Amino acid sequence: MAIISLITDFGTRDEYVGLMKAVILGIDPAAVIVDVSHSIEPQDVAQAAFMLESAYRYFPADSLHLVVVDPGVGTDRAMLYLETDRQRFLAPDNGVLSLVMASGRELRLRRVENARLQRPVVSPTFHGRDIMAPAAAYLSKGVAAQQLGPEVDAARAVRIDGLRAGLAADGTLLGRVIHIDRFGNLITNIDAMALRQLETIQGGGSLMVVIGDHVITGIARTYADAAAGQSLALIGSRGYLEIAVNAGRSQTLTNARRGDPVRVCGHGDGR
Amino acid sequence: MAIISLITDFGTRDEYVGLMKAVILGIDPAAVIVDVSHSIEPQDVAQAAFMLESAYRYFPADSLHLVVVDPGVGTDRAMLYLETDRQRFLAPDNGVLSLVMASGRELRLRRVENARLQRPVVSPTFHGRDIMAPAAAYLSKGVAAQQLGPEVDAARAVRIDGLRAGLAADGTLLGRVIHIDRFGNLITNIDAMALRQLETIQGGGSLMVVIGDHVITGIARTYADAAAGQSLALIGSRGYLEIAVNAGRSQTLTNARRGDPVRVCGHGDGR
Amino acid sequence: MAIISLITDFGTRDEYVGLMKAVILGIDPAAVIVDVSHSIEPQDVAQAAFMLESAYRYFPADSLHLVVVDPGVGTDRAMLYLETDRQRFLAPDNGVLSLVMASGRELRLRRVENARLQRPVVSPTFHGRDIMAPAAAYLSKGVAAQQLGPEVDAARAVRIDGLRAGLAADGTLLGRVIHIDRFGNLITNIDAMALRQLETIQGGGSLMVVIGDHVITGIARTYADAAAGQSLALIGSRGYLEIAVNAGRSQTLTNARRGDPVRVCGHGDGR
Repeated sequence: MAIISLITDFGTRDEYVGLMKAVILGIDPAAVIVDVSHSIEPQDVAQAAFMLESAYRYFPADSLHLVVVDPGVGTDRAMLYLETDRQRFLAPDNGVLSLVMASGRELRLRRVENARLQRPVVSPTFHGRDIMAPAAAYLSKGVAAQQLGPEVDAARAVRIDGLRAGLAADGTLLGRVIHIDRFGNLITNIDAMALRQLETIQGGGSLMVVIGDHVITGIARTYADAAAGQSLALIGSRGYLEIAVNAGRSQTLTNARRGDPVRVCGHGDGR
Repeated sequence: MAIISLITDFGTRDEYVGLMKAVILGIDPAAVIVDVSHSIEPQDVAQAAFMLESAYRYFPADSLHLVVVDPGVGTDRAMLYLETDRQRFLAPDNGVLSLVMASGRELRLRRVENARLQRPVVSPTFHGRDIMAPAAAYLSKGVAAQQLGPEVDAARAVRIDGLRAGLAADGTLLGRVIHIDRFGNLITNIDAMALRQLETIQGGGSLMVVIGDHVITGIARTYADAAAGQSLALIGSRGYLEIAVNAGRSQTLTNARRGDPVRVCGHGDGR
Repeated sequence: MAIISLITDFGTRDEYVGLMKAVILGIDPAAVIVDVSHSIEPQDVAQAAFMLESAYRYFPADSLHLVVVDPGVGTDRAMLYLETDRQRFLAPDNGVLSLVMASGRELRLRRVENARLQRPVVSPTFHGRDIMAPAAAYLSKGVAAQQLGPEVDAARAVRIDGLRAGLAADGTLLGRVIHIDRFGNLITNIDAMALRQLETIQGGGSLMVVIGDHVITGIARTYADAAAGQSLALIGSRGYLEIAVNAGRSQTLTNARRGDPVRVCGHGDGR
């Protein structure tokens, strides 16, 4: 028995997620399935890559993470099985595993192509149900990963570059808003490590975070570090820089949208 | 232990679905519950009938499917238990089982009326929680179906006619959009069998699919058979004709709404 | 093994609920988790208090109810563990347990503060994942409640007053709309007991329910007691007065919003 997590762009209004669960449980009735999110924007592989990276480390070792964000369904893009970080992943070869593969751990990658571990009839529009769900269920039941298909070189998997923000030549961090959560918090692609790097370069002065017309000075610890209605920047529970408003919605205050640029720099470099 | 699937019009904002699960697990702690959809339009029995038909075949044998779309709750409409196709169903007698009962398999139908298999107090507004959830849980625990109530003649159950599209007198298929999914795909009530019937009549020429001002020639295999942004028609994973846009939203392109007519005819009959 | 129910203001688009489940299952793989609602308005403690009270009695004895609506996360507000009514609760000390604590049953309350039953690193913005989820999972596994932290006096827990409607000096019941469900039903904070009290005072004549310009005479039993499209008032499945429209949406008909006043009085006192 394994825990199987699901990240898809299927939403929950349609039956698609339920059918994947039906197929999984038909093969392994003891499987435990956890919904991470089905609200990835349709076919937004980069958003799914961040969602997966935010989630997988909280699962017990040997969990299986299925990511069904698959604009190339029905084409000849490969389906992949990845082991790393004591976790297991099933996803199309479209870059959705980019951040997981950048974790620096050892990677073991296979193509998923054994027809005997698929549903007897495979719909050209729903590989999540007909290929990925059965593969996960057979693995959960104890089928060896070698059965899925041949090992492939991790260097040849599709990767999306530039997902995480890095230090620019002028010594500032230039990132963007990659997600706006239910509380209106703006989650950026600037991770804690990049911030610490910048702090070191700046020699300990407080950092400034700039989004649109808004400038926030200093990195707070929690929401209540600002007065109610005031903006703050903090390392969120995902490990990335977030821009929030205590007891309010940063999205409303800043008018920010997904994709908007966010800049972090030393004090005095703000403009 | 059985798998219990849920289709309701309850949404997930309210506690209604959670209470049904609480009642089920209180009776059978080993029950495994799968949400198919809680987003049926309030009291839309026809939509629920299609959702159920799209879903139940993917579940393991002996699964129990609860459909709580029940405009007549609190009236004297009967509650039904149906066995067919190696699956089991619990639903109000309002036509929601019409497509399942049209599958051509043997039907065994009972009225659900044994008060000992209900909650001690039955709310006149929530039979899903007080009658259907306990019935499912007792069945899951192994209580015999005969305990639910007397057998009834399947011919007397309420059925909704005309759900599936059929061949019109002029040799065309006239259906309608019954669902628009999260990707903007337009799912029609024209099934694969009816299309094959029409192809045979037409003698092999390619079919035309007409919705509003849009005419699509030929039935594709998967989304990528059209160029990005282009319309296509295909047999979707539900087994029904879908109108889609590769890497786009058909709903946006066609301005279609649920209920809009869709016509399929031989080439040259398009207008 | 226990049943763990979840009420949060996290929504389901973000990964927050999934991470709580991952943490729970990592500690107790046999835990059974039931979503009650994740659609509490952000930081609306009063709405969560009503949702919890509407739900917990339907769960089997010894279930664990987690309520993560926590505007004070990261401040020094306490985290509480409550036992009452043969149910168990984990929630911040912010009043969300007010209605449960008003049930009149014996209350046993503890502070949750044992760091060994938390995740090794506790994010100052996500105690649901790092403190509450592990606490629930350890309790589910059989860890004794005394391990969580010291007993505290229930009289010192934060309570929100005036949640439920009471009889006013003029002999009428003045309440408000506390929730509008998916069907457009207006759920008030006037409970069945208060209505019976008023009926006794009025000596048996039919009651009138007034919301905005609308006056409804009498308390119905179920939706079908009114003609289609007509308003009615009834005791809903939550045990509170609801204003509904048979086969329609009361919200649309009355233009009501959450918080709007609702008055119940004897016949003739309506205006």
